[in-house]
Amino acid sequence: MTFHYQNVYINETATIAGPFEKKGPLSPYFDKTYEEFYFGKKTFEQAESKLLEESVNMVLSKAEKTKSEIDLLIAGDLLNQIVSSGYAASNLQIPFLGIYNACASSVEGLIIASNMIDKNQIKNCICSVSSHNLGAEKQFRYPVEYGGPKPKTATFTTTGGASAYLSYHKSGIRVESATIGTVTDLGIKDAYHMGAVMAPAAARTIYEHLKDTKRKPDYYDLIVTGDLGIYGKEILKDYMKTEYQIDLKNYNDTATMIFDLEKQKDVHAGGSGPACAPLVTYSYLFDLMKKGKLKRVLLVATGALHSTTMVNQKLSIPSIAHAISLEVIE
Amino acid sequence: MTFHYQNVYINETATIAGPFEKKGPLSPYFDKTYEEFYFGKKTFEQAESKLLEESVNMVLSKAEKTKSEIDLLIAGDLLNQIVSSGYAASNLQIPFLGIYNACASSVEGLIIASNMIDKNQIKNCICSVSSHNLGAEKQFRYPVEYGGPKPKTATFTTTGGASAYLSYHKSGIRVESATIGTVTDLGIKDAYHMGAVMAPAAARTIYEHLKDTKRKPDYYDLIVTGDLGIYGKEILKDYMKTEYQIDLKNYNDTATMIFDLEKQKDVHAGGSGPACAPLVTYSYLFDLMKKGKLKRVLLVATGALHSTTMVNQKLSIPSIAHAISLEVIE
Repeated sequence: MTFHYQNVYINETATIAGPFEKKGPLSPYFDKTYEEFYFGKKTFEQAESKLLEESVNMVLSKAEKTKSEIDLLIAGDLLNQIVSSGYAASNLQIPFLGIYNACASSVEGLIIASNMIDKNQIKNCICSVSSHNLGAEKQFRYPVEYGGPKPKTATFTTTGGASAYLSYHKSGIRVESATIGTVTDLGIKDAYHMGAVMAPAAARTIYEHLKDTKRKPDYYDLIVTGDLGIYGKEILKDYMKTEYQIDLKNYNDTATMIFDLEKQKDVHAGGSGPACAPLVTYSYLFDLMKKGKLKRVLLVATGALHSTTMVNQKLSIPSIAHAISLEVIE
Repeated sequence: MTFHYQNVYINETATIAGPFEKKGPLSPYFDKTYEEFYFGKKTFEQAESKLLEESVNMVLSKAEKTKSEIDLLIAGDLLNQIVSSGYAASNLQIPFLGIYNACASSVEGLIIASNMIDKNQIKNCICSVSSHNLGAEKQFRYPVEYGGPKPKTATFTTTGGASAYLSYHKSGIRVESATIGTVTDLGIKDAYHMGAVMAPAAARTIYEHLKDTKRKPDYYDLIVTGDLGIYGKEILKDYMKTEYQIDLKNYNDTATMIFDLEKQKDVHAGGSGPACAPLVTYSYLFDLMKKGKLKRVLLVATGALHSTTMVNQKLSIPSIAHAISLEVIE
């Protein structure tokens, strides 16, 4: 399902990242980084919610808006019942829609907002996501204390809060079109190989987007997925070729960009979590776009729609990807 | 944030309910009911996902549409990572947006869909929610085996799947307007008194809706919340009077309608879960509307945005309510 927009712009963004991202190559591009995992809060969940809320307040400040001038907040995260978003929304006091498509939530939010702004149903919107490495470890994987070894294909949940301020006011980056994805499940059950789980969903959405817009991949200066990791990225390229006869060249994956995979061995196959793709896009990629080094970018956020419950029941892991086309204003 | 629509209709609905709802007073109005909790599946979570999927297939059949003719599926549920929705979406193969506003998810979905349909961005949409009593007990409360006694203010999660087919084709019930709510938290920490938690959010959204539309409560033949329960319902009426000087008369709550609270003592203060409000609305209330006994109904779905993690951290429980105005076609 593809939409074309005439009047939607991401005017401002805010990116706040945690200690591992601070040590990564994109550190200078983030608006703010933290040295540790608590940010003055007592628990990982409350810390994550603070990140999301802080990124909203930061984007408000950049856009020179007060909370009461914002029509809508759309937010999502990985915590059960998306409490990072819910508790932040409670403090923020902006009309709120909670969303969940795992790590595809960032683009899901941008699409819902863009549809409403393009038709003048709302005048502006803040779209936010968050993730927290230790919050995710606690909820999804081993107990943190355990420190069990992981396979190389595992990804490392990024710690961050990322917000975008969208309106019909012409400034920043234009949202040109978007494609809502369909859930894809090729039967993979390995929660430590999310790149393999999500690559087919990403491929399908890229294919649908190119088909619906009658474009070739080289229409875009960059097609960027988030977050497949180093193995998933190769799987995606192979799968695009064999399944759809499409050769991806100007392609990258945010999981492999946010960390230095040579030096930061702890992150295994790269970054993940809803915050990873927007942390990279809203900071580093938007900087390249504003400098004219990239004009057209297709951001494809990918999400694995599993839970520990369903993985323990030996079900395979469904995944989804949503795509959004971003352009430098002429 | 209030929207007005010109061209949105709920053409068809499907309601499937579980064993307790089957024994309740609205049983004859449901499209299908089950005698037990598994529906041929091995776990509660898979059973819940089946209910959601089955309700989608049923509404497709009523609307005489195939899956490939549907532009969008919007769904949500209470399970961690909304897996009931995600796994159903995987089987259904319809472009998918996952949402989460707890028991307010049903109306959240209707609003996102209505905004897109009204401006012709999509031609149709299926909005679905589900809940499962034992799935919810397992996840949120005591272990099922424990059978710990609960206070009278506790509600009983309904078991059901409910779907609505919306399009711009004029038939069924018209979606006239809608109001997105703002998260409200008056500091209540008692997860066994969700009526008290959610009543202020419901009151606030009703107030905002009436203010934005310049209407009085008696514009509606019925204002119906879901799900506050018998105590929350009284709190709402009191709170509307003291906080907003509004006297609610044509008012009811779906939590108190789906069960016979005199005979079905197990359900304590009434029904809850994302399925409760649409199970009542799409079956019994739509029947009354189609018979001309109700012309204008304001459905206000209420959600408690907590998690066991946050309740265990002694945080208070934020809540939200979204409202949608439904009308009989002239």
